[in-house]
Amino acid sequence: MESTTTLRVRYAETDQMGVAHHRNYLVWMELGRTDWLRQRGRTYAQWEDAGIRLPVTGIQVNYRVPARYDDLLTVRTWIKEAGRRKVIFGYRIEREGQRLAEGESVHMIADLNGRATVLPEEMLAQLA
Amino acid sequence: MESTTTLRVRYAETDQMGVAHHRNYLVWMELGRTDWLRQRGRTYAQWEDAGIRLPVTGIQVNYRVPARYDDLLTVRTWIKEAGRRKVIFGYRIEREGQRLAEGESVHMIADLNGRATVLPEEMLAQLA
Amino acid sequence: MESTTTLRVRYAETDQMGVAHHRNYLVWMELGRTDWLRQRGRTYAQWEDAGIRLPVTGIQVNYRVPARYDDLLTVRTWIKEAGRRKVIFGYRIEREGQRLAEGESVHMIADLNGRATVLPEEMLAQLA
Amino acid sequence: MESTTTLRVRYAETDQMGVAHHRNYLVWMELGRTDWLRQRGRTYAQWEDAGIRLPVTGIQVNYRVPARYDDLLTVRTWIKEAGRRKVIFGYRIEREGQRLAEGESVHMIADLNGRATVLPEEMLAQLA
Repeated sequence: MESTTTLRVRYAETDQMGVAHHRNYLVWMELGRTDWLRQRGRTYAQWEDAGIRLPVTGIQVNYRVPARYDDLLTVRTWIKEAGRRKVIFGYRIEREGQRLAEGESVHMIADLNGRATVLPEEMLAQLA
Repeated sequence: MESTTTLRVRYAETDQMGVAHHRNYLVWMELGRTDWLRQRGRTYAQWEDAGIRLPVTGIQVNYRVPARYDDLLTVRTWIKEAGRRKVIFGYRIEREGQRLAEGESVHMIADLNGRATVLPEEMLAQLA
Repeated sequence: MESTTTLRVRYAETDQMGVAHHRNYLVWMELGRTDWLRQRGRTYAQWEDAGIRLPVTGIQVNYRVPARYDDLLTVRTWIKEAGRRKVIFGYRIEREGQRLAEGESVHMIADLNGRATVLPEEMLAQLA
Repeated sequence: MESTTTLRVRYAETDQMGVAHHRNYLVWMELGRTDWLRQRGRTYAQWEDAGIRLPVTGIQVNYRVPARYDDLLTVRTWIKEAGRRKVIFGYRIEREGQRLAEGESVHMIADLNGRATVLPEEMLAQLA
């Protein structure tokens, strides 16, 4: 399954190079996985209510073509790997079908105190 | 008492107008009041440890001259009003003695759940 | 005329108080006036292409009820005052009809170098 | 050569997990390479004045231990690779000697319009 998130580049996301600053892609990827989870029937807010968090332990992004103010972007999100202790999401950011960037985020499974824990079976099922 | 905070404008704080985006002044004012509290002997982190938070209930800023990337800025911070239910901080942001902006922030006194509470006497004394 | 912008609070917009950090309301107000202009037939990107910018010279916000992660918010935006040298936008931020905050932003009319200029007649007509 | 940048985690950089949000590490790495360049005698602002920019084309970060509000962090920055068309910086983020994260950023050499160009000899010498 691949989810699709649409967003518009905000003025506040640009920098003086005249393009979206590279840190924002991490925020857009976060919106992507939020939508991915929502489409699978349980929002990330509900994950937290259930006592599970997914802190980011690794990030990797390739930036190919800059995004600009007011661009309408699509974030495609999918699961690359899902286990009881680690999840990896993959992302592709596009503008009118053109690939602007791709990335991945690695997550540990944590409780609300940030300690490593094991993903309950039913939540793993949501990711599989 | 007036505290003085020095900071450099970050590249990530600029926008495509080529100046610091106006939302960052709120973050700089937050750094200013953090330093003001630190100088008075109890950091804001220690306020939170003591169960007291100061959520912002009002903001007002006048922007006069834009700040630019890599500028070395000074934030001057003082207390305009301090009571058991409300605190108001005043700020002046300068570059080499020139006033760039001034503002104020109004804060309620809250517990860790965000509910209005009354400032303990000894913490009020820190502000007076 | 009043425009309506819908947005969801991002995880990256929260802080350790467990609510949306107050600086983000300035970004949401910016989204509001961007949509206001778009609905009137010329986007802010087109304003910049036409050589006109609207730098923020003043901000005022009252925060009443905190916004939380994943909340679906509505930003209502209108013009409070429009002249050839200054424009003031008003905003009201709501969640399911409840008012969370209201604010206003004051803007000068500037050229692409940030210098004060006079708003051309046809662009003033867009605001009136 | 390795440069050392000291910074304090801002309240605005935390999220509702109670730690610094992962996107901020990219901003701290940017502060790190800014200081690296400054120590080598030409600031990044001067690079831009000379017509050269270093847009980020790749980012990679491993997050090991979370940074928290008001933590005093050290960013260690060094050059991993420097050529006439590409530069790679390496980073290590520490708190009191403990490694919190490490990362790298890949940069193309661009002119002020964002087009790929070749780094002038004297600027390459600054990196070597």
